[in-house]
Amino acid sequence: MYVAIMGYGTVGSGVAALLKKNHELIRKKSLQESLELKYILDLRTFPGDENESLVINDFSRILGDDEVKIVVETMGGLRPAYDFVSACLAAGKSVVTSNKELVAAKGKELLQIAAANNANFLFEASVGGGIPVLTPIIQCLAANEISEVAGILNGTTNYILTKMFDEGADFESTLLNAQQLGYAERDPSADVDGIDACRKICILADLCFGLEVSPGSFTPEGIRNITGTDVCYAKALGGVIKLIGSAKKLDGGKKVAACVSPAFIKNGSQLANVSDVYNAVLVRGDATGDTVFYGRGAGKMPTASAVMADVIDCAANFGKTKAFGWSEAPEGYVITDDEFTSAFIVRAVCGEDRVKAAFGDVKIITFDGAPGDETAFVTDVICKASLKKSLADLGEIRSVIRVTDY
Amino acid sequence: MYVAIMGYGTVGSGVAALLKKNHELIRKKSLQESLELKYILDLRTFPGDENESLVINDFSRILGDDEVKIVVETMGGLRPAYDFVSACLAAGKSVVTSNKELVAAKGKELLQIAAANNANFLFEASVGGGIPVLTPIIQCLAANEISEVAGILNGTTNYILTKMFDEGADFESTLLNAQQLGYAERDPSADVDGIDACRKICILADLCFGLEVSPGSFTPEGIRNITGTDVCYAKALGGVIKLIGSAKKLDGGKKVAACVSPAFIKNGSQLANVSDVYNAVLVRGDATGDTVFYGRGAGKMPTASAVMADVIDCAANFGKTKAFGWSEAPEGYVITDDEFTSAFIVRAVCGEDRVKAAFGDVKIITFDGAPGDETAFVTDVICKASLKKSLADLGEIRSVIRVTDY
Repeated sequence: MYVAIMGYGTVGSGVAALLKKNHELIRKKSLQESLELKYILDLRTFPGDENESLVINDFSRILGDDEVKIVVETMGGLRPAYDFVSACLAAGKSVVTSNKELVAAKGKELLQIAAANNANFLFEASVGGGIPVLTPIIQCLAANEISEVAGILNGTTNYILTKMFDEGADFESTLLNAQQLGYAERDPSADVDGIDACRKICILADLCFGLEVSPGSFTPEGIRNITGTDVCYAKALGGVIKLIGSAKKLDGGKKVAACVSPAFIKNGSQLANVSDVYNAVLVRGDATGDTVFYGRGAGKMPTASAVMADVIDCAANFGKTKAFGWSEAPEGYVITDDEFTSAFIVRAVCGEDRVKAAFGDVKIITFDGAPGDETAFVTDVICKASLKKSLADLGEIRSVIRVTDY
Repeated sequence: MYVAIMGYGTVGSGVAALLKKNHELIRKKSLQESLELKYILDLRTFPGDENESLVINDFSRILGDDEVKIVVETMGGLRPAYDFVSACLAAGKSVVTSNKELVAAKGKELLQIAAANNANFLFEASVGGGIPVLTPIIQCLAANEISEVAGILNGTTNYILTKMFDEGADFESTLLNAQQLGYAERDPSADVDGIDACRKICILADLCFGLEVSPGSFTPEGIRNITGTDVCYAKALGGVIKLIGSAKKLDGGKKVAACVSPAFIKNGSQLANVSDVYNAVLVRGDATGDTVFYGRGAGKMPTASAVMADVIDCAANFGKTKAFGWSEAPEGYVITDDEFTSAFIVRAVCGEDRVKAAFGDVKIITFDGAPGDETAFVTDVICKASLKKSLADLGEIRSVIRVTDY
């Protein structure tokens, strides 16, 4: 059986390297007499690369080659990835991808094309990098009614927040440092503005609840506005601030609260201890309670590992479509920002009296060196519409951070 | 399709309850038009139980009923579970079990019988209760060369060690308390002496490395000898003591170091934060690095969730055997206790001078209130034979606890 890789960047070259390194183990588990790489599609050339001779720039050679049964898509982006992937699936080839943008936007449709052609479309690597999480959700938690899924889904922002916490540093300087170390892109927006985490929580929600949550259905909030002072309040309250993507079933599954935002996590939570570029995903099921999956959320070899596991799955089960997927959600499935309900940590430029007049007898937080002109406090569990209304009675609001119960 | 349950105790009744609670979801994922419970095998009677009418005491009725395609074994113990399970598999029925004793002792053979009869023998629930861990190892980490697997595999001992840590209590009083709360059995030996954890790490090693580690091939060490003083030293060293089962590949897989014993885990490790009855399993792969699976390691519904997931898998793939298993290991595969290599925390009744004469310039540990007549220290990484030799030069040895690097 032959495999092709589309996109020879970090992940694609990792897939080729892993297939070479653990070749016999992978072939055996694939239940194939042979499992070889035949083409690498890339517009660039790779002089001196050990796979140089496999590199082609014409997609039609992959599509037209009946020997290629499995295609790995590690190009990223929506176009031309979508066109290539849908064409491969329509031709009965199985496709494995690490492309979260593609899965979040087009996964439902691509799974349907796969099923119609006895092929598979698998994407374990699109969420949590090397962490096995999608397959465990689909298979191992299959007997559960899942009520909530949440996680630290982006390594770059978790690295920045960990450094801010450990070193008391500011966002801007930490970002610069992360960029110099190669942990953040020169244009860090997809990471620090929560766009990447948003795609991943959408994929998780799709799989956990069976109805589509599209990335455009709510607005992610990133970590640009988090300051060293916010971090100090979190410490004083006995926890940390993490960028959390979460999706929670409401009304017996008729609605979902989807969210990406900085959030307070108390120490002792399995998510509080997730540092640096590591990721973790928590799944709350009616039978299991909370299970957590932890590991490297990105990186060349961890991601390649997840891709290769899917390739093995496709090879071992060639011709049989795995039964999973999700349906289109009814209008209004994702609740609005105003309806979103949580406790919140608020910092307001006013005295305790005004806070208590507006919010009742809430818990006040402080720390040595806290700004003297503000009051920080934790609200009860309220919806954002009520929060906004009560905040209007206070002075300037410096920050609002939701509090989780994981 | 019909299912039978053998053993209507905690887990068996949980399986029946979960099948009822999430029936439509489970049936759908099983890809069956119907999936119903037909028999419950138990020698007891259950007057008034909602499933009373399904209870039978004659195994041959299950074996002889061609409509029963999947049999759940939740009886526990080796006999008659082994006879019943092997007979079912030989008859082409798939079997799902939560019985770690059976899997650790007879798993290899039962998987072979299953394969010879196009049936499946699945046992996700035997390790980690509701935590998906075996399937992720088999499927999602399939492209990895796994070098080590380790975990907190027993909820009772973890509950006891957590209380000892939080409350500075002694082992005996904490055990008594755990028994009163129902977290420990009246005869706690299987838990506190490490027998249960031993079976589980054997199953993990079998699956991770592909060669059998039988429970008799090494001697587990339990937590009976852990004292409040040991716990204080661990705190002073910045960590906790956990009962850790571990298996590590040596010599490129020709040997394995298997072990169950109390171990020091530094704070910040994903295993340090695992409290109370929770379990966690760490898998170290060459591509993924460390991944950790966390959740409830026991309990009626979490375990039932893992059993039902396997039932769904058997139903959806009836007639097709999953390709996994392990082989008999060559003589001497599991290294001896003397060859076992680690750093150790030692408490010896002697002064620092004698310690340094025997062990070199090791790290001394102390805490406010430490016994004045002893020296506690951390050795370099050495084999147990060398450790014993050097310890002979010291006075009475109060405890020896290995130090992990997870």
